[in-house]
Amino acid sequence: MNVTLSATLAANEDIERRRRAGERVLHLAFGEAGLPVHPALRHKLVAASDRNGYGPVAGAAELREAAAGYWTRRGLITEPDRVVCGPGSKPLLYGLLLAIGGDIVLPMPSWVSYAAQADLVGSRPILVPSPPGEGGAPDPDRVVSAVLHARAQGRTVRSVLVTLPDNPTGRLASPRTIGRLVEVARELDLVIISDEIYRDLVHDVTTPFLSPADLAPERTVITTGLSKSLALGGWRIGVARLPEGARGLLDKVLAIASEIWSAPAAPVQQAATYAFSEPAELVERVAQSRRLHGVVVNAVHAVFVEAGASVPAPQGGFYLYPDFGYLGVGGSAEVAKLLIEDHGIGVLPGHAFGDDLSAARVRVATSLMYGESQEERMAALTSPDPLSLPWIAANMEHLSRGLHDLSAQRKTAGRTPRRALVATPAHS
Amino acid sequence: MNVTLSATLAANEDIERRRRAGERVLHLAFGEAGLPVHPALRHKLVAASDRNGYGPVAGAAELREAAAGYWTRRGLITEPDRVVCGPGSKPLLYGLLLAIGGDIVLPMPSWVSYAAQADLVGSRPILVPSPPGEGGAPDPDRVVSAVLHARAQGRTVRSVLVTLPDNPTGRLASPRTIGRLVEVARELDLVIISDEIYRDLVHDVTTPFLSPADLAPERTVITTGLSKSLALGGWRIGVARLPEGARGLLDKVLAIASEIWSAPAAPVQQAATYAFSEPAELVERVAQSRRLHGVVVNAVHAVFVEAGASVPAPQGGFYLYPDFGYLGVGGSAEVAKLLIEDHGIGVLPGHAFGDDLSAARVRVATSLMYGESQEERMAALTSPDPLSLPWIAANMEHLSRGLHDLSAQRKTAGRTPRRALVATPAHS
Repeated sequence: MNVTLSATLAANEDIERRRRAGERVLHLAFGEAGLPVHPALRHKLVAASDRNGYGPVAGAAELREAAAGYWTRRGLITEPDRVVCGPGSKPLLYGLLLAIGGDIVLPMPSWVSYAAQADLVGSRPILVPSPPGEGGAPDPDRVVSAVLHARAQGRTVRSVLVTLPDNPTGRLASPRTIGRLVEVARELDLVIISDEIYRDLVHDVTTPFLSPADLAPERTVITTGLSKSLALGGWRIGVARLPEGARGLLDKVLAIASEIWSAPAAPVQQAATYAFSEPAELVERVAQSRRLHGVVVNAVHAVFVEAGASVPAPQGGFYLYPDFGYLGVGGSAEVAKLLIEDHGIGVLPGHAFGDDLSAARVRVATSLMYGESQEERMAALTSPDPLSLPWIAANMEHLSRGLHDLSAQRKTAGRTPRRALVATPAHS
Repeated sequence: MNVTLSATLAANEDIERRRRAGERVLHLAFGEAGLPVHPALRHKLVAASDRNGYGPVAGAAELREAAAGYWTRRGLITEPDRVVCGPGSKPLLYGLLLAIGGDIVLPMPSWVSYAAQADLVGSRPILVPSPPGEGGAPDPDRVVSAVLHARAQGRTVRSVLVTLPDNPTGRLASPRTIGRLVEVARELDLVIISDEIYRDLVHDVTTPFLSPADLAPERTVITTGLSKSLALGGWRIGVARLPEGARGLLDKVLAIASEIWSAPAAPVQQAATYAFSEPAELVERVAQSRRLHGVVVNAVHAVFVEAGASVPAPQGGFYLYPDFGYLGVGGSAEVAKLLIEDHGIGVLPGHAFGDDLSAARVRVATSLMYGESQEERMAALTSPDPLSLPWIAANMEHLSRGLHDLSAQRKTAGRTPRRALVATPAHS
């Protein structure tokens, strides 16, 4: 099993186990949007519950048209026949990797599944860090040297991936970086896969957003879905926008889709058609979600900063990527272990995202702080001051106390080995 | 693109094109159940429309339990932790091929997607014909020689697949053949993949049904789904029952599932939970469907027999696999072309199922004869005499006239080349 996947699963299973055992654990390890389904989407699902035919592999014509409209409204003119729908953007990414073939350049760190999928299709990922202060896009100049080096060794490198904005860092690659990366992709003849599933969750809507597809429509695939912006993770729906004129790639992806997943669930496709047509009620829902994610993740950011962690300010989504190097407790696995065992704070180690095992970075997902019930989550979504809601305040307090205690313990313990802390009762 | 897939897609696209152009085409090329969703399943989907969390990769606990109960009621005692759910049985089959690795023995002919999936995962299928008069299981003795031969050439062969009952032949492998195949699988140390998606559509419920899992629980995976028995193809739901004690294989499949499709759509999982619990109303619906499929496919069988084709009597599902060798017009591609071009009858060529290109066999799917609207299909399902319904009678008449004309033409034309027929106006 892929190391990143097993680390992720192990962390989440550990948190669930502790919760079942009655421990109070703050679950910051899972990238679920943590919000209810909008009633209009439920109504569309219900209205389409008589749809049971297989339907076209590329997705229903009306869904492809709606998704084309979604991109066109963002300045990316799109014909519906370039759209492929899938049961989530994850299978579409898998199908793309399989169809494109060769090795792939990934940002380091990057979402756990890219490298795991590459492993499954026999592609070797080439991990390239982002430019300083950025996330989600490999440093273009380092991409050149890494690809030339790999090619000199006889490897076939065919693609480069960006995540805009990023998971795990919450950062949005700058237009300058994207511009330079597009030049590099042209020089090196690489397909660019742009995962834009968090695009509508950039907190400040005035932040300049540049997709590689704006500059290189002939070589950019965009993937997105409704799991994050409309919290439909469990409904499994994603869409991909294939490059202009890339009929061969489109046909390959459709052939793969046909043999692996056929199509998204038919009733879900109808709800997604409504979502991608962006009616006012859903635009408003996405805006509310964006605001809530932004408020909470930035408040959590401040808590980490106060505790002494080095952590870039998040620009989109609901993730943070703090560095605990100042503690001197070891790498990401040690930090994650310390946080869960001694402070009841569940996070994912940075090495699950392809980062250096020795770096003390962890990924923090803040979206499960909104509540345990649909009622609490709905209240968080509509509250003018979500941080004042008792359950969110309690979560913030848990986090703040945990990080404070962690720093205090480390100051007391100095650089004694980890073992010294194990005997301390949790939350002491 | 895989040859079998492109042949399938091309045939279906051709039929759609002709229909749009106003031609009267009898669509016998697509394996969709052709029946409406039972209202109880729609109600369950509606009731679960608030479910939007990702949920466990293996499927919701209640669905795994229901599927375990489904198998246990068929004499295959199953613990829920051996069940893996997926968005269709097709992705589960893909995940299994990827997890098991090595080359696979397939029946010849067999469902188009097995070989296409094997191609995608880099597995080379070894095609072995069924024993005479059977379908869906490779002849055990020929499996031995084929596997030993492949291994002698340095190939790794790890699995063998059966389809019970079969698509494309509609035949059910005998208990004797299954018994012998299990012995062979043990001798050769092969995992047996038993695709039992048509199991509940064996027409005569007294026909002895033996799953390899009855004899070799330690090495048999069963896959099934609700696409055929309950016509839920477009809802995308399937389940797999992993071998006893095969924790390693289970973990691999879950790791693959996690990286490709995550889980089936959450609301669909709840409807499927109800379906696999087999309440009386759905047992009755499956019985009605079984009866309708049996009545129609057997009536169609009689038409083919009368026309002179050699065609084994179907025992399950809604498929027939006639041999038009008596016409002397060429192989399966020529027969399929002749049927669609001159007689408006759309079928799939046998070579799409891995059969010899030179054999004049085609696959006939009878389930799209039930009607064009949900009302017609519902009437077919509940009619005491579905063949007397005007639209089904018209379809039967179209088929009967087409096959009669085909035979008559061939008798007139003798063995003149195909070209001589092209100029004849269609349906002349």
